[in-house]
Amino acid sequence: MSRTDAAKASPSLDEVLENLRQELRRGTLVLAVLSELRHERYGYTLRATLADRGVALDEGTLYPLLRRLESQGLLASEWREEDNRRKRFYRLSPDGRTVLKQLKADSQSISASLTRML
Amino acid sequence: MSRTDAAKASPSLDEVLENLRQELRRGTLVLAVLSELRHERYGYTLRATLADRGVALDEGTLYPLLRRLESQGLLASEWREEDNRRKRFYRLSPDGRTVLKQLKADSQSISASLTRML
Repeated sequence: MSRTDAAKASPSLDEVLENLRQELRRGTLVLAVLSELRHERYGYTLRATLADRGVALDEGTLYPLLRRLESQGLLASEWREEDNRRKRFYRLSPDGRTVLKQLKADSQSISASLTRML
Repeated sequence: MSRTDAAKASPSLDEVLENLRQELRRGTLVLAVLSELRHERYGYTLRATLADRGVALDEGTLYPLLRRLESQGLLASEWREEDNRRKRFYRLSPDGRTVLKQLKADSQSISASLTRML
């Protein structure tokens, strides 16, 4: 068995932990993005605002996520010129508002459950 | 294009919402299970305790998750007889305690971020 096979068969504790941390975070990313897009923003300022709030994510994660959310009808976008550069501005769509409201309620309920447990 | 293809190409808002809700919940399941297994429990009572705390999950989700967490070294289990029935009791391993501690810290930090945002 090669080293790679061995690693696949039995991930280290660090790898297991890292995967669980990512899974925990992943579920809340969409909620964070929808929440910040109640106000129209373009990618760069959205990413900076999220980082300020403790949700750091790289461009390779954010931009595909924005496109996916737009294709699902939760965001609307518009190209506009600002400071002599064309920028794509995103904002929550009416469907996005509905989804945000439900996810927010879920998140608060999950958070209350975890607080009771931990 | 068949109805199935159309559904795949463009999921309804309900489907999009349901997927996002599941994703939000999924990340916290492991945290909930590890947390409840600080005390030794067998599957049935674990499931009942989680349901009491607002984390409902079916047997087809719980048992594979327990086996996965044990194979990753986060849980230890032991077959014992109780009330004339052999039951498999699970409890957190030392590695499981380490992982629980880190996930708990992450969860509190994520929760604080979301509270600021929402």
